[in-house]
Parts: sequence; C-alpha cells; structure tokens
Amino acid sequence: MPKKYVYFYTEANKDLKHLLGSKGANLGEMKKLNIPVSPAFTITTQACSYFLENNFTCSKDLEKQILNNLKKIEKETNSFFANSSNPLLLSVRSGATVSMPGMMDTILNLGLNDKTVIGLSKKAENQRFAYDSYRRFIQMFGEVVLGVSSRTFKKVIDNLKSKKKIEEDTELKLEDLKEIITTYKKIIKKETKKDFPQDPTIQLKLAINSIFKSWNNKRAIEYRLQNNIENKLLTAVNVQAMVFGNLNSDSGTGVCFSRNPATGENKFYGEYLINAQGEDIVSGVRTPQPISILKRKMKDQYLQLLKISKTLEKHFKDMQDIEFTIENKKLFILQTRNGKRTPKAAVKIAMDMLDEKLITQKEAILRIDPESLEKLLHKSLDPKSLNNSLILTKGLPASPGAVTGQIVFSAKRAYEENKKGKKVILIRTETSPEDIKGINACQGILTKRGGLTSHAAVVTRAMGKVCVSSVSDLQILENLKKVIIKNKTFKEGDNLTIDGTTGNVYAGKIPLVNPILSKDFEKLMDLLDKYKKLEIRVNADNLKEAEIGLTFSVEGIGLCRTEHMFFEENKIKSVREMVLSESLEGRQKALDELLPMQRKDFVKLFKVMKNKPTTIRLLDFPLHELLPKNKKDIVDLAKTLKISALKINEKIKNLKETNPMLGFRGCRLLVTYPEITIMQTRAIVEAAIFVNKKFKLKTVPEIVVPLVGDVKEVELLKKMIIETINQIFLEKKTTIKYKIGAMIEIPRAALISEKLAKHVDFFSFGTNDLTQMTLGLSRDDSNMFLKDYIRLGVYKKDPFTSIDKEGVGQLMQLGIKKAINKNKNLKLGVCGEHAADPESILFFHKIGIDYVSCSPYRVPVARLSAARAAILEMD
Amino acid sequence: MPKKYVYFYTEANKDLKHLLGSKGANLGEMKKLNIPVSPAFTITTQACSYFLENNFTCSKDLEKQILNNLKKIEKETNSFFANSSNPLLLSVRSGATVSMPGMMDTILNLGLNDKTVIGLSKKAENQRFAYDSYRRFIQMFGEVVLGVSSRTFKKVIDNLKSKKKIEEDTELKLEDLKEIITTYKKIIKKETKKDFPQDPTIQLKLAINSIFKSWNNKRAIEYRLQNNIENKLLTAVNVQAMVFGNLNSDSGTGVCFSRNPATGENKFYGEYLINAQGEDIVSGVRTPQPISILKRKMKDQYLQLLKISKTLEKHFKDMQDIEFTIENKKLFILQTRNGKRTPKAAVKIAMDMLDEKLITQKEAILRIDPESLEKLLHKSLDPKSLNNSLILTKGLPASPGAVTGQIVFSAKRAYEENKKGKKVILIRTETSPEDIKGINACQGILTKRGGLTSHAAVVTRAMGKVCVSSVSDLQILENLKKVIIKNKTFKEGDNLTIDGTTGNVYAGKIPLVNPILSKDFEKLMDLLDKYKKLEIRVNADNLKEAEIGLTFSVEGIGLCRTEHMFFEENKIKSVREMVLSESLEGRQKALDELLPMQRKDFVKLFKVMKNKPTTIRLLDFPLHELLPKNKKDIVDLAKTLKISALKINEKIKNLKETNPMLGFRGCRLLVTYPEITIMQTRAIVEAAIFVNKKFKLKTVPEIVVPLVGDVKEVELLKKMIIETINQIFLEKKTTIKYKIGAMIEIPRAALISEKLAKHVDFFSFGTNDLTQMTLGLSRDDSNMFLKDYIRLGVYKKDPFTSIDKEGVGQLMQLGIKKAINKNKNLKLGVCGEHAADPESILFFHKIGIDYVSCSPYRVPVARLSAARAAILEMD
Repeated sequence: MPKKYVYFYTEANKDLKHLLGSKGANLGEMKKLNIPVSPAFTITTQACSYFLENNFTCSKDLEKQILNNLKKIEKETNSFFANSSNPLLLSVRSGATVSMPGMMDTILNLGLNDKTVIGLSKKAENQRFAYDSYRRFIQMFGEVVLGVSSRTFKKVIDNLKSKKKIEEDTELKLEDLKEIITTYKKIIKKETKKDFPQDPTIQLKLAINSIFKSWNNKRAIEYRLQNNIENKLLTAVNVQAMVFGNLNSDSGTGVCFSRNPATGENKFYGEYLINAQGEDIVSGVRTPQPISILKRKMKDQYLQLLKISKTLEKHFKDMQDIEFTIENKKLFILQTRNGKRTPKAAVKIAMDMLDEKLITQKEAILRIDPESLEKLLHKSLDPKSLNNSLILTKGLPASPGAVTGQIVFSAKRAYEENKKGKKVILIRTETSPEDIKGINACQGILTKRGGLTSHAAVVTRAMGKVCVSSVSDLQILENLKKVIIKNKTFKEGDNLTIDGTTGNVYAGKIPLVNPILSKDFEKLMDLLDKYKKLEIRVNADNLKEAEIGLTFSVEGIGLCRTEHMFFEENKIKSVREMVLSESLEGRQKALDELLPMQRKDFVKLFKVMKNKPTTIRLLDFPLHELLPKNKKDIVDLAKTLKISALKINEKIKNLKETNPMLGFRGCRLLVTYPEITIMQTRAIVEAAIFVNKKFKLKTVPEIVVPLVGDVKEVELLKKMIIETINQIFLEKKTTIKYKIGAMIEIPRAALISEKLAKHVDFFSFGTNDLTQMTLGLSRDDSNMFLKDYIRLGVYKKDPFTSIDKEGVGQLMQLGIKKAINKNKNLKLGVCGEHAADPESILFFHKIGIDYVSCSPYRVPVARLSAARAAILEMD
Repeated sequence: MPKKYVYFYTEANKDLKHLLGSKGANLGEMKKLNIPVSPAFTITTQACSYFLENNFTCSKDLEKQILNNLKKIEKETNSFFANSSNPLLLSVRSGATVSMPGMMDTILNLGLNDKTVIGLSKKAENQRFAYDSYRRFIQMFGEVVLGVSSRTFKKVIDNLKSKKKIEEDTELKLEDLKEIITTYKKIIKKETKKDFPQDPTIQLKLAINSIFKSWNNKRAIEYRLQNNIENKLLTAVNVQAMVFGNLNSDSGTGVCFSRNPATGENKFYGEYLINAQGEDIVSGVRTPQPISILKRKMKDQYLQLLKISKTLEKHFKDMQDIEFTIENKKLFILQTRNGKRTPKAAVKIAMDMLDEKLITQKEAILRIDPESLEKLLHKSLDPKSLNNSLILTKGLPASPGAVTGQIVFSAKRAYEENKKGKKVILIRTETSPEDIKGINACQGILTKRGGLTSHAAVVTRAMGKVCVSSVSDLQILENLKKVIIKNKTFKEGDNLTIDGTTGNVYAGKIPLVNPILSKDFEKLMDLLDKYKKLEIRVNADNLKEAEIGLTFSVEGIGLCRTEHMFFEENKIKSVREMVLSESLEGRQKALDELLPMQRKDFVKLFKVMKNKPTTIRLLDFPLHELLPKNKKDIVDLAKTLKISALKINEKIKNLKETNPMLGFRGCRLLVTYPEITIMQTRAIVEAAIFVNKKFKLKTVPEIVVPLVGDVKEVELLKKMIIETINQIFLEKKTTIKYKIGAMIEIPRAALISEKLAKHVDFFSFGTNDLTQMTLGLSRDDSNMFLKDYIRLGVYKKDPFTSIDKEGVGQLMQLGIKKAINKNKNLKLGVCGEHAADPESILFFHKIGIDYVSCSPYRVPVARLSAARAAILEMD
C-alpha cells in the first residue's frame, strides 16, 4: 500500500499534529465542531521529509493523492481547479507542528491565470476583485515561489499610484490592475527567464515545493534556533479552497483572540479589515479596525465569531488566536491556534482558566513557560516607544531587564557618578571581581567579551542588574573615555539604553515600564509548591541577595561564595595582605583581621535565613584575582601595606596563570594554606553558635569544599575542619550540628564519587565548572566559535545555559550512582547557571538531585521548572 | 595464638621478604647456604605497623618474642645479654622490603654499659677496643636514638685531637677514650635531661622504637618520594650478634660487589678497612683500601669471600652488594643484597647473565629499570668533577642530559650566538612556540616556570636537548640581560651548566662525558621485540625527529604536530597572514602559499618512514599563539604584510583567551575555518600520492582530528576531508588508502566514544590534555602546589608524568569499552608524555591500547616498558 501523504480535512484531528502540523490538525478539529471551514487537505511532514531527502523531488504517490483530494474539494465547493468558467482557487500554506508565525510561506489565490481570472470575474460579478486577486497572486507567487524581490513589485504599484496621484491600493482602478499585471509578468520573465506559469497544476506543484524548501530558509532556521525548535520536525502544507475577504464591502478578514493576549483579561479581542485579504493585515499595508467596529457593522457575524471563539477556547482549553474571513456576509474560520501571549497574560490566563475549571492545576502549571517568568521581575522597554530601527547593536542577553543611563568606563567613575545620583551604565571589555564596587553602583553593564556565564553576567544576574555581554563590535577607547559602536562615537556621560532580556543596545533614552507582580503570580507560586519535589535554594553572597531569595520563598541558601565577600571595602586590605605575605605569620595576622568581619557576614545570613539550610563554600579563587590590577591601585596598596609596589608586581607576576580555570584555586588553596580553611571554619561556626544563642535558632551550617578532585583532599580538609570545630566547641562550651560537603566540579570527582561519598554529607554539583572541564570549553573564551557551533548543530544549545545531558549529564549520573551506592543519605544539589534553566531542571529532577540553587531573580523560574518536572514525571 | 612478630634467622627465607625486609630475609638465605653469618633475629614490618598505629607503643607479644629470640642468640654465641663478664653485644638495623641504602638507622655495639665494657675488655683482652666500642655506641645511640646532633659529639673528639696534636681517631689512647665517654655522657644528660641508659634491655627497646620511627623521618620520606616507594611498606628491624672488625689488626670490615657496579664488568670488586667498624667506611672518616690489598694480606679470607660472592650471585641470580667483617681472621657476612648499578652496568650485567644462562630472557628484561635507559642516550656530568656543593639551585628535570654553555636571554640571541659557533643556554621565564628558532639553536634551556609537560619540556625532549624547568628562584632581568640566582648575578655570555637528568643547575663549566651505546644495548633492544605487544611509535614533527626515532626502530609516527611546522621560518609569514586575514579570500591566499610547503614537509616524512604508519594531526593551536609577541616582531610583521601594527595588536587582543587550554583551538578551528582543514588534507594526501608514485611506496597516511568533543565535529570534518580527498583523486587520476582518526583529549569524547567510534578508524588518546581536563589541572600552573600535593599524598606521583589510573585511566577504560563495542577494528593509541612512562605503559598494555607514541629519545624506555608489560602479564 502506498504511504498516506495527504489527509482530507475530514480525516484530520489533533492526534495527527506531528504529521499535519497544528494548522492542518486544527482544521480537522474545527470541521468536527461544525465550525465553518472552507474545504481543505493537508500534505504531511513525511512528504516534506521525502522531498528534502530526495533532492527536492516529490513522491509519485504524493502527486496522485493530491489530485484525489483536489477532486474532493471540487466536489464540496462545486468549483473546479483550472476550470476557466468556474475556477476553484486555493490557498497554500505551510503548517509546522510547532507554530512558527510568519516564519514560512503562504500563497493565496492560486489557480488564477489569464483565463480563470475571467471566469472568476463573471462568477463573482466583480471584475476589479478578480483582477486584484490575480495581481495579488502573481505578486505573492513571484516573491515566494520564484524569488523575485518584493521591492520590485512594490515599486510598480508605487510608481503607478504616484503617477495617478492616489494614496491607497483600494483606489486603483481595473485598468490600473491590468496594467500592473502586465508589468508583473514582464518582471517575472526578465528576472527568471521564464514566463509566469499559467498552468494551475504547475502553480500548485511549485507552491508546494517552495513551502517544503522554506523549512530551510534563513528566517525559519533563525527562528527555530531562537525558539529551540528542532530542525527535524519539518512542515506540512495546507491546501484550502479560497474564500475571499476582498470580494466586496460585505466581505473582510481579521484576527481575533479569545482573551486579551497582552493582559490576559478574559475579553474577546481582535481586529479586522473590510474588503481585504489576510495579507493586507500582515503586511501592514492597511491599518485594521478594532473588532468592536465589526460588532456594530455586522452584528450577526460578530456574534457568530464570538461564539466560535468561546467554543474553540473550550475545545482546545487555551486562549485561541483565530483567523477569519467574511465572504459576502458568510463567516469562515481560516485557522485557529493557541495564541502567543505576554508572560503576564500567560500567568493570568492560566490562573483564570483554573478558576473557571477549564483546566486542571497541572495543566495550568504546564501552560506557563518558566523562562518567561523572569521577565515579570524586571523593568522592560516601553513597547510603545520601540521599533527595531533604533537598535544600535546586539549582544548576548546576559542579565534581564532594561535600563537607560549615562555611560562610564571604569568602576570608579560608576561609583562616583552614582553617588551624585546619576544612573550609569558601565562599559568594560570584561569585568573582574575588583569592579564589584562599580557594578554595585551602576544600573547596567555592557561588555565586549564574555558569555552568559561570564563574571559580569553571573554577578549582575545575582544582583538583578541589567547586563548585555559579548558585544563584539564595541570599540572601547578607555583612556579617551569613548566607545565607538558601529561608527557612532559615544563619550562618557552620553546616554545609552540596554535591554538585557533581548541583548539589544539602543542609542539615547528609551522609556521603561515597571514590573508589577500580580496576585496571579503569587497564586501560581503557591500552586507550584504542591507539586515540585526539588528544593529551591538561592545563591546568595550577601544579605541583600538572601533577602530577595526569601521574597521568592527559597528554602535555603545553596551557595554562598565567600570570596565575593572578600572584595568588600572593609576586607580587601586584609585579604591582599594575606595574599602578599610570604610567611605563615604574615598570613595569620591578616586572617586574624578578617575573622571577625567574615563572622559578622555569616551572622547576618544565618539570622535572616532562620534555620533554613545555608551552604557556605570555602574560598574558591585564584589568589592573583584578589590583587589589584591597575597601576594606581597597586601603588595605593603598596602605601597602605607599607611595602614596595615592585614587590606587589613581582607577586602578581608569580601568581599569574596560563589557565587560571585549571590552576591554583579551590581546595588546592585550602590544602596548601590550612590557615585559610581554619579561619573560615571558625567564622562560620562561631557565627552559627552566636546566632543560635542570641536568637534562639538552630542553624545547621553546611560547609562545602570547592574544586575537589581527590579523596585525600576531602580527608585532609575534613580533618582540619572538624579539629577546628571541636576546638571552638571546647572554647565556647557548647556544640551545634553542622554538615560538610564537596563541590563536584572536576570530572575526576564524579569518576571517584564513591570514595568521596563516604566522607561527606552532601554533594553540590558545580555544573558551570563541570561543563567547562568535561567539554574542555572555557566559558569566557567560547564565544569565538559558539555561534558557529550552534549554527552547525554541533551544540544544540549553549552548554553553559542548558546542561549537556549526553556528556556532563552522563558524568553526573555516573557520579550519583556510585556515590549513592556508598552513602544512601547523601544529599545532592546543583548550583550554578543550569540550576535555573527549565530544561536542565527536568533533567536534574530525573537523575535524583535533591535541590537546585540559583541566583535570586531566577528562583521563580526554577520553582516553576521544578513543579513542571514533577508533573511531567507523574504523567 | 599470639601473632608472630619475630623470626630467628634460621626461620627466615626470601619468601618472607614482605615481613622481614630484604636484609632479614637474606640472612636466612645465607644461613641456609652455610655462609658464615652471626646469629640474628628479625622483627617484622607488622610489628612496625602496630607500633606506628598504636601511638608508638609495641605489642606485649613482641616483647616476649624478643626475649625468647635473644636467648637463642645467647645460646649460639655462648655469651649473655647484659651480662657483665661475658656480654652479648648486638647490632640493631632497619631493613625495609625495598632497599633504601643509608636512609634509615643503624646502631652498633648495643649492650655496652659501664659494667659490660669491662667484661668485653677482659674477654677480648683488649681494653682500647672495648672502650672504643663503648665510645662508638654512646655516640651512635646518642645521635640515632636520643637525637643529639652529630656535630656535638664530633666537636668533643676534634677538640681532644687538636689538644693532643694527633690526626687520626686510631691514635686516641685508652685514657682519651675514657675521657671522651665521660664527656659524651655529660652531653647526653645535658641535652636530654636524662642519663645515658645503662640497662641493655632499655637500650634495645629504645633502639627498636627509634628504627620504627625512622620510617617516617624526613630523609626516608624524601627518598621514598624520589624512588616511588610506597609509604605503607614499612620497615623490619634486624637484631644480630656483633662481630668486631675493630678488634685488632687481624680484623677489618668492607663492602664488595660480585661484579663492577659502575661498568657491569664481570669482575669481583670492593674495598675494605683494617681494624674498623662498618661506620668508618660509611662516614668517610677513613679512606678504605681496594679489595686487592686484602688478597695480598689475608689470602684465605679473600678467597673465601670471593667464593661466597659467587655463591650468593648464583643463588640470588643477580649482582650482589655484600657487607663483610673479619673478626680475628674469621670472616662473617653481615648482609647481602642486589647491588645498585649504573644504567650502563645494568644493561651489561643483564645481557652477560643471560649469556651465562644464569637468568632467562624474561628475567633479563625485567632486571632493567626502563627509566634508566634514557640516561644512556645523553651526555652526563663527569662524576669525577662533581660534588653537591657546586649546585647553585635545582629545578624540574624536564629533558635529560647535561650541557655547559653561555647564557642568553632571547631566542634571537641564541640563534645569533649559535651562528658564531657558541654553545648557548637559553634562559626564559617560559618558552613559547615562537622561540622555536632559538630553541633549535641552543644546547639547553632553563626556565622559571613550567612543569614536565610545559612547552619547553616537550619540545626539548623531542629534540634531545637539555631542559631544566620550573626554577622558581631565577630572577630574570631580561632587559638588563642578567639573571640573579640565589643572590649571584650572571650576565649574558657567562657560563652555566645544567643537568636535565637531575634538575641541578651549576655555576661555570663542568666537564661532561659522552654517551656510548653499547652492543649490549642493541642486544637488549632486539630482545624486547620478542616480547612486547604494544607498537612503539615516535612523535615527530620533522625529518630529524623521525630519523632519531628510526634509529631506535620505531614502528611508525604516532603524532606529527603540524602546527610545529608552521613556525618554521619559511612558513611563519604566510601563517600569520592567514591568522590576520578578516576574509575567507585573504585566508585562502595565505593557505595557498602554505600548501606546497606543508606538502614538502609531508613528502620528507613519508619518504623516510617507508610505508610505516604516519599519523598527522591537523592544526591544534590557539590562533593567537601563531602571532608575534614582542613589539619589534609586531612592527616587522606589519611591514612585511603591509598592514598597520595597530591592526595586528587589535587582532592579538581579540584573540587573547582567559583559558587558552579550553579555548578556540583544535577541531574547533578546523570546523570554523574549513579552508584550513582542506589545505592540510590536500598537503597530506598529495604528498602521499607523490611519494608512493616516485618511490614506489604504499604510504597510508593517517589523519587525526584534534580536540574532539562531539560526534558532529567528526561528522563535519570527516565529510570535508573525504570530499577533499576524492577531489584530489579525480585531479590526480589515482587513489591511495588513508585512515581518519580522532584525538581523545576531552573528557566528553571518552564519555561519548561509542558515537565517535562508528566514524573513525582509530582513536589517539592525548593523555596530556585528557589529564588536564579530567583533573581540572593546568600543566603550566600546577607547580604552585604540586610539590605540596605530592608531599601530602594527594597525588602519589605527578599526574602528568604517570597516568592517573583511578581518574583518567577509568575514563579511558570506559571510553575504550564503549567504543570497541561499536567498532571492533578500532585501533587505539596513546600519544603524549605518558606514552613513555613505564608505569603508565603497564596500564596501557592492560587496557588494550595498540600503540604508544613518544618523543624520540624516550623510545627505548617505551620499548622496554612494553616488553615488561607483556612479560608481567604472562606471569
């Protein structure tokens, strides 16, 4: 039996979506619901697959099946394809499984030629309509199928309009249209060396092929990339009998939504154009009118449409985006699909539909894109003031939200200008931890280098500041306090606007709108806790971050990076003294100064976390990063510490590393300088004892050892930590509970996890570093080829954004299996950027992770993802 | 039943070596052979273990068993411990399983006190002897057991000798000795706050404990570290009835070897001292006489010793190092062990014994330390001219051999001075590929930074040049052309001598001796091929390296690093042009220039290799490394290429990476710039076609893709390579065979090996990079803590020298298992430093590797290791 490549609309239904695309499947659904749909058939994605794999030729079976189905349409419409007196005209549209609005091609009025246009004129009793349709068809076919540029066609019409001194297409007379048609045909002949095809069968064949090919056009590939749609899904083709919104003034076409897609309000919403075809709305040639006008002018049709909208929403259990056409007062639905919506609307619609008992709790949760939630938490550009021509350049969307501010080129200037009350955007080639004061003072950061997990990106996300990174066409002239962007020069104090949600950079000021967290948002959050199994913690290096986390109901701190504390103004002097000291005594003196300061930091955290688990990571930092970088700071430090700048320079030189990522950091430092380990342990445990006593709490601090690669490291450090703690217990004459864990960041740690598991209470997977080492990929340097790699399909996604399940994930699973085997009580966490990535969270849930810890503003995303993971597992 | 902690010498034998140490086990063997041995017993390593694990206390059982065995000695010697008229005196010596000569402690004459010394006087009828023995005992016991410094005791004797105006210890009179004894006792009382113990039982107990403790003294730990002896082996203690070489002039003591330990010659060799105890030889207080003198003076004893030496050699089937004592004309053997020997002697002895049918082929092979072989291939310092006080400083022994030369501080100067015929040593903070011309021109390299696998180390080993790296106390003042080493300043042109075998650096010139490859060496090499299964290949980037490899009978080239070819003078301009070009056209132009040059390089290699497999690795290099580094070179390049230096600087800045190891290199470059892949493929295949035709060969080039992390990379590159090759076949109207392989260097590649295996003919494990990434350890930066890590036992050995079986090895095994499962014909190679490490080779043999590829001068080491691996597997 030949393969079934074509489904008539009566055969279609939503279970065939993978074959028919959503458009085709929904046509079948609508037909079943007795909604007025023009007869149609759908060519499957398998036919597309055949076409693409067989050197752009269609299966013979397909051709036969198309003919058979054409006959069915002819029967239902009582008109005939290629018949010059009673012509059947077709719309031919792409239709992918996942909706890709406007990304692929559509051809209307197919079947018209020099003869059928006369037939249509007579049948419709409207010559102008027929020739306008023919003009439209040649133009669309010319553009979409034959590849003639739209500008060429547009120029013809524009010239004629200016010659005739008319403004609107609708004012074109019959003769004008005929003249245009003649010119169009000449253009096609000239550009393609062939005549415009008069045979409707050939028109249809070419149109179908063109849609198949359009799956791989640049625009479609780009869209799929941006929206993480798999290339192999392919498109179906829908062939449908035309209905004409441009027949007369009792006709029209429009788009409506069963609820408001911007606000989510449960209110019918839409717009329409009288005497028009769909393309008139899409192309923006004419400005449509609000749907309320339709209510006044064609009440019956309006009420019918409203009813259909309700029916469809109820049927599909989601807000519908409906295209309709009225032909001579008769309403047809062209297509319906689940409507795109703003994040805010998504939350409201899901919560409303839950209240309306239209969907279940699980469905409501699954309905919301986790990633979109973060957008609710940040300022955004006012859509009213926005158009793409304002975009100056584009970088990576490193930390979401939008900001307008005066540009500065150093952390110091950021600090100074901010003190004067200015809003500033800091522009840097890349940031380093010593810029932290400036980062704190600015509203946003723009960097030339660094990916989504660069220092600037990670720090700004944690702080809820805006960041656009990796803007390679920044030419920063730091000394001149200037930046050149695409030949435009901006100097210190000039205004820029950056959008960390899209990565766009704009010149000047653009109005912003504030986020408002709705009741619906809170309702959703509460709902999530009923389902999710993963514990959600926050990465917090200071009180502020912990507090933001708590407003999003985190269950603990999963990662407190003590080295970030070291950069605070009151500590950096002692820290640098410690690094520069050649002797244990010198280091010890500096550490003695640091101890009370670190203890105070931990007191603040433990106090605000009120018994919630708080994981403190011991120092994990290349020492040289703690030293100043520019000349002036070095001289200043030399003065403060009363040593020569030469000595500081020598030390900086000695500590310089070729590959700091793989260098002297993490537990390697802690093993080599036990005094640091002891000081930090002391600060943590003394703080916990103090807080527990003063505020009657039962804090159980969790100490985690970074960058573990060998069991001996854990043995040595555990011994140091426990001896220090026991000493404190003796001194304070009291005890507390505590936990010791290991960061699993080095591939070897995962490989020998069964040995580590015996010694610790928990593992914390540092998936950023684990990804870097497992893939041999520096997050700071990979931008040079990452785009190419994603384009070529080597990586499906940026592996620093979404966990590489096959490689890093395999290693994690291996590590977990071995470890749990040796220590059933081992608690497993993930901290880092992946801990807030929805797809990664599904994976973490599946492999048995107990908690994820992410930056404060990503907590809602993680929470929703965790609930989704649990729900998807149930089903 | 109590545990047996003590073995009488009649109970001992060589199978108990793990318990009794080699000294104790061999005493038993000698007893069985009826060789005159003074009665003795041995306390086991288990007793040592008990002692160290039980807070420095001995088991009660041990004490009982010692007493029982003491009684047996008393019975045999008919003298009695602690008996004042007929005292039994003991020697107490350490004895580890693996011989650690001079590393641990020995106490002689134990049992003497103020009373027994009188008994001894009477019994020996020699008062001076008895008091001299007592003096020696107090001194040794004081030093070894009570921890008084040897200088304190020496000062007493020196003072007395200068007072009495005598030169030799032997001139000391009885009264002098008594005076010394009194002073010694006072010193001990003063320093230890306790009297010298008079009770022989307490003396014995303290001596035994002290030897147990000595296992962990600094000297012993250091020795084990250097010689890769495991800490857990522990030491036994040998307690033996004293015989006295210092009794009278019919007595004496000495050391002899059954063959010459320096040359290997089968000739009895040794030296002795008349009227002396062993310590007199060891301490260098007196200069011993050659054994030939003994032959004249005491012919019977000499002949008896010679006979025993033969007997023992035959019994132990190895050259013996024998300590003996003659007491009043009666010969006693104190101990025998397999003698240490020079690498040269080792080869000669093994081959001679094989000829003599004393040992089998397998035994002969196992007898030679693979690591020692390389020493035969390089110049060395003349031992006659050498003493440790000449050492200026010490670094890592990065590339073996010794060299004397004038120092220079730049590659350029090295080249210029070498042209003048000078021998030069290049001093650099670290070297980079662009120094290659200077490295070529110099005799040796001294660097401040970089480990055993740093650029300098790898390149010099390949070239057979000397390198000492990681000399942290170099203070290089490059601009002043000076270096300060330990406060001494050396300027350009001054002479230094560096020893890359030991890592020592000497001021001035030191005479060198040339290597001579003996017939025995060649005989050994041939023998190896009968046993080894691993194929041995050479890493060769140029003709010279390939030729050296071939002199050591390599079976192919396992790794040709094409990027090294890029640095040659004729190519570097085009290479840089390629890197700097912004357009495909520009790159293509430069590549077109490079093609004939690369092809020529490959022609040379294929020609010399005569059908032996030759693996060419496609470009694996961060682009910025190909650009010049210093100002002048940049200006020069700008002139040559007629572009602005500013542009070059901008490009260098843009290409700079934070972690180049994890950056834009390897197949990432090849995927992003297909034109490079195509050019290199073309050069390889065109060269092979040319050579095959011209020289009637059947070269099968093996192309290997570096730094693979994903199957898609292999798919893309394989497609490019095959398309290019097919194009060449069409052009040349001929075909050849070829293979395509993948470098397994990224942990992820091992994790997804089953996917890669389907696409390639072979895997080449790049274990250097694999180690770096699996351990998260940069080979260039790890020196900052590697020493501490080895001292603390985190790493047993430098993981860049010896493969980390537990981590990296596990990953390799995992990768191999999965890969072989999918592709049974997959060939597996290892290239990199581990490929010549004996222990690593054992591992590679075991896990199913087919070939190893190492630098030319390491080939004999690898070959021997491979044969050993096969033999060890058989047994």
